[in-house]
Amino acid sequence: MTNPTAAMLVIGDEILSGRTRDSNMNHLAKRLTESGIDLREARMVSDDHDAIVAAIRALSDAWDHVFTSGGIGPTHDDITADAVGAAFDTAVDVRDDARALLEAHYAKAGSELNAARLRMARIPDGATLIDNPVSAAPGFTIGNVHVMAGVPKVFEAMVESVLPTLTGGTPLTSASVRVERGEGDIAEILTELADRFDDLAFGSYPFQRPDGRFGSNVVVRGSDPARVEEAEAALNAAFP
Amino acid sequence: MTNPTAAMLVIGDEILSGRTRDSNMNHLAKRLTESGIDLREARMVSDDHDAIVAAIRALSDAWDHVFTSGGIGPTHDDITADAVGAAFDTAVDVRDDARALLEAHYAKAGSELNAARLRMARIPDGATLIDNPVSAAPGFTIGNVHVMAGVPKVFEAMVESVLPTLTGGTPLTSASVRVERGEGDIAEILTELADRFDDLAFGSYPFQRPDGRFGSNVVVRGSDPARVEEAEAALNAAFP
Repeated sequence: MTNPTAAMLVIGDEILSGRTRDSNMNHLAKRLTESGIDLREARMVSDDHDAIVAAIRALSDAWDHVFTSGGIGPTHDDITADAVGAAFDTAVDVRDDARALLEAHYAKAGSELNAARLRMARIPDGATLIDNPVSAAPGFTIGNVHVMAGVPKVFEAMVESVLPTLTGGTPLTSASVRVERGEGDIAEILTELADRFDDLAFGSYPFQRPDGRFGSNVVVRGSDPARVEEAEAALNAAFP
Repeated sequence: MTNPTAAMLVIGDEILSGRTRDSNMNHLAKRLTESGIDLREARMVSDDHDAIVAAIRALSDAWDHVFTSGGIGPTHDDITADAVGAAFDTAVDVRDDARALLEAHYAKAGSELNAARLRMARIPDGATLIDNPVSAAPGFTIGNVHVMAGVPKVFEAMVESVLPTLTGGTPLTSASVRVERGEGDIAEILTELADRFDDLAFGSYPFQRPDGRFGSNVVVRGSDPARVEEAEAALNAAFP
């Protein structure tokens, strides 16, 4: 059995201009790994209708799940719902259940549900709402695409709302062995181990410390914890 | 005149598993913005030959420049040079000038230039080397693709080696106005300002502080500093 696959699409000019450092991709990556869903690709595009539509279509065709972040707020540059609607050839309009969530939230907060905020109730036909326990304005799932907010606290809450609805595979386990030698010194032995444990994935990640000492973190991943443990022991024996 | 466009391709299982948080994309984004080159897309793929080849081809066709990070070290999972060679239908082999750089570096360090390290001298035919002042092993440019290391210190040094060789456009200037009101309250005025200053790009980025107060950072960007200043004044007047 192979695990379900996934892609992430990060939407927003502020990411590509360098003004904002995306943290949602790393968060999603960790949560998917824990859930046995393999994140295989991520893309970042600007607030551009055609770019979002093209990316949604490509990723939705290629992978089992697509997770998006960004562009579902109340301002003029929030165009994700319309782009996702276009990608699925479906109409987008204010929906009663989404409007009711916003009405209740803003009534409690004593704020007005004005035209701008009402934009956040615009949902493509046929979508299922994603619960937003932080600030009410919902995300939504249409087909295999899960559309979520860009604000990290809200994004992270929405991920927790979506994950239980998905069927995961076998979660990966991993072991990390720190070797105080450069990658060039350990590459040969590492290749031998990767051949011997060919049901596991070996990665090597060089580091350099501020004091100038360097080395490699060797990470081994697999779905069978006993095999990962066996490989970890072999690594420790090879690099004492 | 429009600015040159660019894309970034981040290569590595460790990014998509969530083990490592990519910082190269944000660094490149800032440096390109300062250089008048518009970063329009970023992708992250795993250490998978076909995925790297497909992404290189798609991005190289779509944008003026492509910058890659990762997968050019000495270990078995470093397969970027071969994938880039395949994307350009060109042979990849150890090249004398790259080997000479490594020989000099490891001789000085008193380390052996073994078979694994020599892999870092494998360069696609017709490529130009990118200087690596940190650890010698070069990156390379082939066609419009600039292939660089994943280790942030080395990546950043290679970016500085490449940028002066590129023709930039007009650098963007930006102004940021902090508004202590939620996005839903400012969206209408913001839309009016975005229409009035339609040669500039307006973005709105909500924030919430640990004490629960929230607001929006409104950012306006453009190539004409005088217009950006004018828009900043209009923003300050609209949101006193």
